[in-house]
Amino acid sequence: MSFFPSALDELVEKFASLPGVGMKSAQRLAFHILDLPEEEARAFAAAIVKARETVHTCKICQNLTDADECAVCRSQTREAGVICVVASPKDVAAIERAHEYNGRYHVLHGVISPLNHIGPDDIRVRELVDRVAAGGVSEVIMAMNPDTEGETTAKYISRLLKPFGVKVTRLAYGIPVGASLEFADDATLMRALEGRQEI
Amino acid sequence: MSFFPSALDELVEKFASLPGVGMKSAQRLAFHILDLPEEEARAFAAAIVKARETVHTCKICQNLTDADECAVCRSQTREAGVICVVASPKDVAAIERAHEYNGRYHVLHGVISPLNHIGPDDIRVRELVDRVAAGGVSEVIMAMNPDTEGETTAKYISRLLKPFGVKVTRLAYGIPVGASLEFADDATLMRALEGRQEI
Repeated sequence: MSFFPSALDELVEKFASLPGVGMKSAQRLAFHILDLPEEEARAFAAAIVKARETVHTCKICQNLTDADECAVCRSQTREAGVICVVASPKDVAAIERAHEYNGRYHVLHGVISPLNHIGPDDIRVRELVDRVAAGGVSEVIMAMNPDTEGETTAKYISRLLKPFGVKVTRLAYGIPVGASLEFADDATLMRALEGRQEI
Repeated sequence: MSFFPSALDELVEKFASLPGVGMKSAQRLAFHILDLPEEEARAFAAAIVKARETVHTCKICQNLTDADECAVCRSQTREAGVICVVASPKDVAAIERAHEYNGRYHVLHGVISPLNHIGPDDIRVRELVDRVAAGGVSEVIMAMNPDTEGETTAKYISRLLKPFGVKVTRLAYGIPVGASLEFADDATLMRALEGRQEI
């Protein structure tokens, strides 16, 4: 039984349904909402509705956008023949921040993960194959996280794409810039040695 | 610069404005909202507006309620002559859960805290004094947290109330039920000794 007004209980419940938010935090957040000026509380609610209503996936690259096609896919200055495949829109943001890549993207919205019952049909693999099959693509760069699921997904996709005669690459593994060799883990060191380059 | 649609950025910003929510968490929460069925996202937004609109403070005890007077203040079976003073509505909920107290409450919505520039006029002290001045109150129980600010607030209020000839008490300090003496801190042990009772 609760000792708060039902509208407050409902709000606590909503917050508690968010990932990583427990009952205590949900209560704290709900109390914060009560303390907001009414206008700001309304703006918060409006932002939720607006984001949910206007943001959807780009029909080409599956990245998040509020248009039919995202800015990268519409751009005339970005190489159309290179596709960087990532697991999530956050990865697109990370790569864009590096200001180094000038091709297109493909967002899978997940990785293949048998343990979590996520198969190739649960992520946007088909859309990628269709893009490559449509022609004009020379290289597909796999940019999944360097973990088992990421590698499995990259291998699976590269096998699907090879028949189209497209070059499939992946991001280099190695020592992160600025890190200490001393603290690098064995797997990273091994990969860095394997991928050593002439200078 | 952001690489997300503006509506998503705005939602991330809103979440990040909540207490204890950093940018990373805000992003995670905003992405979760995008993944919700549209109906659930709307229900979330509606819960925010509804809570903010319908929940306010009881005009007698200042606890949160969606009515003019809260259920405790309206109750015919609760002792009207005993008022338990707490800092926050959460404390009312905690005391109610104990099923031991049958009086009324008064919620201060904060404690006196010079360091945070919160003085007696910033919390609901006046409303309490008015209640006691109106008569019919025999005992006021201070139930603030046993820290410096809580004790300062309790002492300040008890000084204000003494002239009305009302009995002012505070919750007992001591070893929490189920705790180990071994791990009790010095201050608690001292208080427990001071407050020892004959058995």
